Amino acid sequence: MSLDHTWFTEIAQGHAMSLELSEKIHEEQSPFQKIEIYETKTFGRLMTLDGLTMLTSRDNFLYHEMMAHPVLYSHPNPKDVAIVGGGDCGTLKEVLKHDTVNSVTQIELDERVTRVAEEFFPELCEKNDDSRATLLFEDAINWMHQAGADSLDVIILDTTDPVGQAKRLFAEPFYSDCLNVLREGGIVIAQSESPLMDLDLIVDIRSEMSKAGYAEIQTIQFPVVTYPSGWWTATMARKGQKFGDFREQMARHKSFATQYYNADIHRACSALPQFMREAF
Amino acid sequence: MSLDHTWFTEIAQGHAMSLELSEKIHEEQSPFQKIEIYETKTFGRLMTLDGLTMLTSRDNFLYHEMMAHPVLYSHPNPKDVAIVGGGDCGTLKEVLKHDTVNSVTQIELDERVTRVAEEFFPELCEKNDDSRATLLFEDAINWMHQAGADSLDVIILDTTDPVGQAKRLFAEPFYSDCLNVLREGGIVIAQSESPLMDLDLIVDIRSEMSKAGYAEIQTIQFPVVTYPSGWWTATMARKGQKFGDFREQMARHKSFATQYYNADIHRACSALPQFMREAF
Repeated sequence: MSLDHTWFTEIAQGHAMSLELSEKIHEEQSPFQKIEIYETKTFGRLMTLDGLTMLTSRDNFLYHEMMAHPVLYSHPNPKDVAIVGGGDCGTLKEVLKHDTVNSVTQIELDERVTRVAEEFFPELCEKNDDSRATLLFEDAINWMHQAGADSLDVIILDTTDPVGQAKRLFAEPFYSDCLNVLREGGIVIAQSESPLMDLDLIVDIRSEMSKAGYAEIQTIQFPVVTYPSGWWTATMARKGQKFGDFREQMARHKSFATQYYNADIHRACSALPQFMREAF
Repeated sequence: MSLDHTWFTEIAQGHAMSLELSEKIHEEQSPFQKIEIYETKTFGRLMTLDGLTMLTSRDNFLYHEMMAHPVLYSHPNPKDVAIVGGGDCGTLKEVLKHDTVNSVTQIELDERVTRVAEEFFPELCEKNDDSRATLLFEDAINWMHQAGADSLDVIILDTTDPVGQAKRLFAEPFYSDCLNVLREGGIVIAQSESPLMDLDLIVDIRSEMSKAGYAEIQTIQFPVVTYPSGWWTATMARKGQKFGDFREQMARHKSFATQYYNADIHRACSALPQFMREAF
């Protein structure tokens, strides 16, 4: 059967994910990309960037929680955090739930993504004026290159796919700058695409991180229903130390609510399918 | 953008999954349903039943391994197994990898599904003539009602969605018959749909199993890229005993190859997202 213009469709490698639309409620061309907002029939609101799914109201919790909580509970005491990209502010909101965190600097290239999110996804942006948060709108490559050595505990690379300009965010020179900015024991986490569709890319990211000199690399997996294949990964790399156990008791008795993440999920998400283990 | 007739599309609740097609290579109307086989661009062959995805060459390992190995390694010594449905024989093939298993009886309503699978998915059917396997083509409700008490260790409900006739396979009377047929400590596992799309249904299945009198119920989660939402569950229920630890050392040193399953995945798959835990 065919899908007509009442559906949004994202095609990737002979596979497509579509959402049925009620209406388009916003469209603009920012200096960097086309931003569109739709009301969908069953997934709430949808934001797309240049025609690719950025998030929906209904399932963004999967991605945002898993970009924030596993890395933060894997660090013994994360105080200073940077988010690269993350313009919709969903990851920022999750990071700010952590009492240990003193500062979060978000470096997003396109201010319009954040302004549009503030308007159409207010539930993700309600902590944007938290005194611990600084929102910068500039190129993260330059920012990271100039940032002070040993000044951050956690860096979250909440980026778009590694195409065009964003490719530089998935390569050894940038990971080396992150390494320099991290304190001993600090952790960088990068969204690293789909296990089934992009295995070569995950292997690549891990290899670029290795070349940059991290002590250990760990890929985690989780569902994101509206991303290609519905199955996603993030890859963490630690400076100077191996990953020990995570702060399980803190995670088990956390003071804030989550929809996907909990301590059992934390323990589970680093279990890798056999084909991934063999590829690594 | 629109998808035309060169794509197969399955729509569920305002969400759609599509695969790009090369050609349709088979189509027939069996006494029970329309069976179609396509060659896809990137997922190998696709079988659909009445227009719904049954399996693809590329990702069926996710489903078949997770319907077979967690339940079999959760049982201390599974000897006699039944599969309800499972006409494509992918689950059967996985079950027969286990040396402990003496007999597998598969009760599939539609013989044509199996015959078509033998022709177009020969890699799934290569063990169909194993001397331990018996393939029956009849109604599983009657079969289970008449089967001997205390005669099976594991029952795998590898069924279609709970609509039409298949609804009876997701209800207390059938689960009670399964309970009667299981030996003490025996386990039934049912495919139980998508966490995000069908949470009420999973809650229902668990409740029907509870009413039937099982000692403990456990839902596991895993990706199946070509099923609605790309995220799937199965629900296990045990007769007379709680789930203890699984046979981890056996799973860790198993003599056969898998693509998704391994002992770490086994431990991880029963970790439930917070929203599921709260719903249960």
